[in-house]
Amino acid sequence: MSQPDREARETVSADNFREVIRHLASGVTIITSMSQGTPVGMTATAVCSISATPPIILVSLTTTSHTAGGVQHTGAFAVHLITDSGKQYAEQFASKGDHFQGVSYQTDEVTGVPVLNDVLGHFVCRVEQSIPVADHILFVGRVVRCELKIKEPHPLLYFDRSYRKISPVSEAKAGNLEPWGSTQDSGLPGWGFF
Amino acid sequence: MSQPDREARETVSADNFREVIRHLASGVTIITSMSQGTPVGMTATAVCSISATPPIILVSLTTTSHTAGGVQHTGAFAVHLITDSGKQYAEQFASKGDHFQGVSYQTDEVTGVPVLNDVLGHFVCRVEQSIPVADHILFVGRVVRCELKIKEPHPLLYFDRSYRKISPVSEAKAGNLEPWGSTQDSGLPGWGFF
Repeated sequence: MSQPDREARETVSADNFREVIRHLASGVTIITSMSQGTPVGMTATAVCSISATPPIILVSLTTTSHTAGGVQHTGAFAVHLITDSGKQYAEQFASKGDHFQGVSYQTDEVTGVPVLNDVLGHFVCRVEQSIPVADHILFVGRVVRCELKIKEPHPLLYFDRSYRKISPVSEAKAGNLEPWGSTQDSGLPGWGFF
Repeated sequence: MSQPDREARETVSADNFREVIRHLASGVTIITSMSQGTPVGMTATAVCSISATPPIILVSLTTTSHTAGGVQHTGAFAVHLITDSGKQYAEQFASKGDHFQGVSYQTDEVTGVPVLNDVLGHFVCRVEQSIPVADHILFVGRVVRCELKIKEPHPLLYFDRSYRKISPVSEAKAGNLEPWGSTQDSGLPGWGFF
């Protein structure tokens, strides 16, 4: 196939891409940091676990956002998992205006980043790598503290432009599967290498 | 705080990290590629959307996996979104044995990667960057083709070591929110900049 032919076949419009990618379900998180002495934060779904040893998380933030600026400046951020009753948090941190108004939080005493109280759980991370990709920056963060705050948590989900809940019907545990996104396909059963 | 004190406070065990991170809900995907003429693939949840212009996706794969090897060699991969009736696909691609046994797929004629038929949707990507992080490789992929195959799709979820479904009760659309993980917190309302 000639180069022009190949290029013609490899052009995906933003609208076409959005139509498909909005069907990738995700948990809703809020990413916080500090920027020039002020708490900053934003709602995010592009968050994933990378490794357990050492514990590493990745988040993708819009380059021009105040939150990305804060993370770059302080070298630290917190990731909060939001419960299905916390939709107003997600909306507030995705809206214009003061994201922290009425929000209960503490300041992490080592990194200085704000840690929200009314969440399912959180991670405090130090930036190990920052990778610019298109109009976003990927922050690879080493987890230095984490806590699960609710014993039987229900996550807030995002799917096809709507906030959603998880089905209350839980199936049997799927063995040793762990959620960091990759199976061991080199001989060990399933994700059981953890 | 002295350096030893700080280090003592910043040590998170793998078990502690897993206890929290497994409560990050995610959609279930299968990543495929080719390795030495053979189709390879694995179940993965560490997948996120990075940008729409250009369309870019990130996946994190175990460095030692056959799939990561295939992606490195061919420079291409496909990401498949799995439906809530496709749990057996997720289990098969996370298990030992022949991942493609009985699986209906086609070969993408430009990149050569296998594209599964019975899925919610898929993306074919060319690798733009490969970033090693701990025992994983992050592949940043430019989307060159994508398709939504089901009009009213229901995704397969993964949460707390179980396959789950999304609640059937959909709330009103949340405006222009898009799922690539980051809000515009620099003045525009919500995620409405897309």
